[in-house]
Amino acid sequence: MINLYTWRTPNGRKISIALEEFGLPYTVFPIDISKNEQFAPDFLNISPNNKIPAIVDEEAGNLSVFESGAILIYLAEKTGKFLPASGAARYKVLEWLNWQVGGMGPMFGQFGHFTVYAPEKIPYAVERYTGEVRRLLGVLDKRLSDAAYVGGDDYSIADMAIFPWLAGLTTGYKAEALLDGFNYVQAYIDKIAARPAVGRGMLVPQV
Amino acid sequence: MINLYTWRTPNGRKISIALEEFGLPYTVFPIDISKNEQFAPDFLNISPNNKIPAIVDEEAGNLSVFESGAILIYLAEKTGKFLPASGAARYKVLEWLNWQVGGMGPMFGQFGHFTVYAPEKIPYAVERYTGEVRRLLGVLDKRLSDAAYVGGDDYSIADMAIFPWLAGLTTGYKAEALLDGFNYVQAYIDKIAARPAVGRGMLVPQV
Repeated sequence: MINLYTWRTPNGRKISIALEEFGLPYTVFPIDISKNEQFAPDFLNISPNNKIPAIVDEEAGNLSVFESGAILIYLAEKTGKFLPASGAARYKVLEWLNWQVGGMGPMFGQFGHFTVYAPEKIPYAVERYTGEVRRLLGVLDKRLSDAAYVGGDDYSIADMAIFPWLAGLTTGYKAEALLDGFNYVQAYIDKIAARPAVGRGMLVPQV
Repeated sequence: MINLYTWRTPNGRKISIALEEFGLPYTVFPIDISKNEQFAPDFLNISPNNKIPAIVDEEAGNLSVFESGAILIYLAEKTGKFLPASGAARYKVLEWLNWQVGGMGPMFGQFGHFTVYAPEKIPYAVERYTGEVRRLLGVLDKRLSDAAYVGGDDYSIADMAIFPWLAGLTTGYKAEALLDGFNYVQAYIDKIAARPAVGRGMLVPQV
């Protein structure tokens, strides 16, 4: 059994989607970040960066893994699915996974902070991160004009990383208008959302 | 031969350090981002996110890889060095690599933007990212109080990702004072800086 420590955020949902896609049994432990539960000592032993998601794999001697990108690679290598074991196709998936982890996720997050959560609206910061979200959507749109999935012909862990952040743009950040003109991205959102495992994963955690 | 497209930034230096550490022969192609060379069509074919670093491996059928985290994994798997092939030690390296790619790098980058490069000083943003840099340094310091290297007992691609950003904090961002009190991080900087391959990699590109 895998224990999943998570909350209702795009990064958390990457892993519940993945566990559903991989068909791995898991137990959900909600970590309510609105109550600072991510700073509890037991959780910090698993996730020293005080962030969700994190997992503990009981089958692997209670191995703990934090950081959503590392967890996705771990689960893919454990099951042999959704990440080719070698060759060019493997590194196309890993480069787009890293693009999500290192660029899209952090920049979408800053956009959300300055447009939704910050106590004051700072025009410079709003403009900076709105521009960066648009640029990233343009990069993704161009990629999806050439490839069925972001990593290439096949659905992969890179799509599992990207989808919840696109979904978050339209729900949590209420910024659906930014998708205007990015037709490949819009079609991609619909295609990924239609996967039953994605639908189930997006509902985790239920508290 | 590996062709390295890079510039004098922490992300670029991750890969020149890695190529030196792996002992792989490489040719440097400087991409001067102050002249917008990252938007040239030939470069975008290799790096569609218009960022350095990127590589082309001639030995692998001219496989191109962009995103520093993906390139580090590619080089480690090509050579069998600096990333264990399996087991818990592999995922400890990958979680700290992802911590650098998804957290430390982007947040240090925003700190640099708002404290050094932005045309106006915005107190809210300066405080936000200064606080985040301090938090991340604290997480790293605690980890290094328990482990010789960030991934565990052995030097790894995670250290190659972290070091240039620590170096950039003291040079490009002139924020050495933020390291005060983080004694494990300071000793770690000295230890990594003393590696000959790191010294050589930090000088790339020479233009």
